[in-house]
Amino acid sequence: MDLWYTEKHSDNVGITIKTTKTLFSGKSQYQQLDIVETLEFGRMMLLDGLVMVTERDEFIYHDMITHPALFTHPNPKKVLVIGGGDGGSIREIMKHPEVELAVLCEIDGLVIEKSIEYLPTMASAINGSNPRVKLHVDDGLAYIRDHQNEFDVILVDSTDPIGPAVGLFEENFYRLVFSALKDDGIMIAQSESPFYHADIQKSMYHNLRAVFPIVEMYQAFIPTYPSGFWSFAFSSKIYHPTKDFDHDRAKNRNFKTRYYNEELHRGAFMLPTFARDNIAE
Amino acid sequence: MDLWYTEKHSDNVGITIKTTKTLFSGKSQYQQLDIVETLEFGRMMLLDGLVMVTERDEFIYHDMITHPALFTHPNPKKVLVIGGGDGGSIREIMKHPEVELAVLCEIDGLVIEKSIEYLPTMASAINGSNPRVKLHVDDGLAYIRDHQNEFDVILVDSTDPIGPAVGLFEENFYRLVFSALKDDGIMIAQSESPFYHADIQKSMYHNLRAVFPIVEMYQAFIPTYPSGFWSFAFSSKIYHPTKDFDHDRAKNRNFKTRYYNEELHRGAFMLPTFARDNIAE
Repeated sequence: MDLWYTEKHSDNVGITIKTTKTLFSGKSQYQQLDIVETLEFGRMMLLDGLVMVTERDEFIYHDMITHPALFTHPNPKKVLVIGGGDGGSIREIMKHPEVELAVLCEIDGLVIEKSIEYLPTMASAINGSNPRVKLHVDDGLAYIRDHQNEFDVILVDSTDPIGPAVGLFEENFYRLVFSALKDDGIMIAQSESPFYHADIQKSMYHNLRAVFPIVEMYQAFIPTYPSGFWSFAFSSKIYHPTKDFDHDRAKNRNFKTRYYNEELHRGAFMLPTFARDNIAE
Repeated sequence: MDLWYTEKHSDNVGITIKTTKTLFSGKSQYQQLDIVETLEFGRMMLLDGLVMVTERDEFIYHDMITHPALFTHPNPKKVLVIGGGDGGSIREIMKHPEVELAVLCEIDGLVIEKSIEYLPTMASAINGSNPRVKLHVDDGLAYIRDHQNEFDVILVDSTDPIGPAVGLFEENFYRLVFSALKDDGIMIAQSESPFYHADIQKSMYHNLRAVFPIVEMYQAFIPTYPSGFWSFAFSSKIYHPTKDFDHDRAKNRNFKTRYYNEELHRGAFMLPTFARDNIAE
């Protein structure tokens, strides 16, 4: 039997992916979780029917949500990831020797549990073996309310602004993140597709600018996400993502990156005109 | 009836697009041509079942195959487009006041004819109204053999290296292009997806480097192309695409571009590591 999973990116377009096996399918308190085997992308995790990560292209998303901030902040010792239960962001953060502690705050324990079981290459740093990693199964808002002025970098590794993640795109949340950061802290949040989600981007960047003095959008190609053209919001109290970026530290890093590099760091902020227009003030 | 057109990007993944109407479907001497109406992308042209252009995202491809070369060459007077029968590249070339003549050499007259009929926003400069444009329905190889040392810029606006375009990816063809260019000429060719077509890229860039002293890859997001991550090869006798780029001329251009801009011009050449690796010597 030839089984294809089709994710609609709007009413009128979608990506269709051949699957060979369902590894897990179940419902948590928050959402539907499916992990399937595909021929093109390896194992693939879906939340509420939307592709979150695949083994073949997750390196792009995880390189790009972590390294731009960690090579801009001069001394990132304490990092918080909100969401990101697959563990890929934590795995990349752990490659930075300056980081003393990374905290994963994921609302849905089932995502962590099944990622450890079925996505071991992503979850390698959240399986209990790494003393520099702490896991909290908790609501991100509740967690940061209790941890003010504590983090150098906070990554909002969330799903789309529907379902459990909707609060993570609002100004009140950004204010809490701002005060959970130290005086020179940086926040990164995935910020949807400039091609399909102009309205979400407009309101999200407006909300971010109400809170952070520096807000810049950067881009990455993610083949399994809508349009393949994805973006991240770099929000910061002091450091600018290209002017204050530590080019030499990035260039001399002691680990390989298949997407990120010190040239691309700058190029990622050079946006197509229509993407700049989406967030023009 | 709910009709969806699915283009497979490999045996195991594809894009699926809702169509509402078939405007033209026919076979030329060279290939199958279909033009359909879609809800998401407007009108869409397919050759042998592969998406070539859509009204909604063609601005990206046509900005990026034309403006990087035309803002690098200091005085592009005579430009040749091989392929590109939809007319989008010619439309963009015409925005450069330095260009005295643009020649379109398309092997398949049916593509030109039906683009003028059904894709008027793309074909606006090839419908006979523009005295700076000449059309030749001819094989690109035969044409450049007869026009040596003549062009400032040549754009190879081809389909994939299957069917009628296969010869346009070979070293012999690049040698002919080289000698059809003036002593400071530039050639641009679309060079497939770094994500899906590593093998094609490897051989294509090897062939280009055997002929041109300067060969650089640059990137663009094209949502309706495989993976959404597409590339172009910048090949040149003298001018380097970022060192010799005329930033001020690009910045002060007297026309709007929805994708290209003078910052993105540089950023487009800052590639992900895996894309650089595809074409490493």
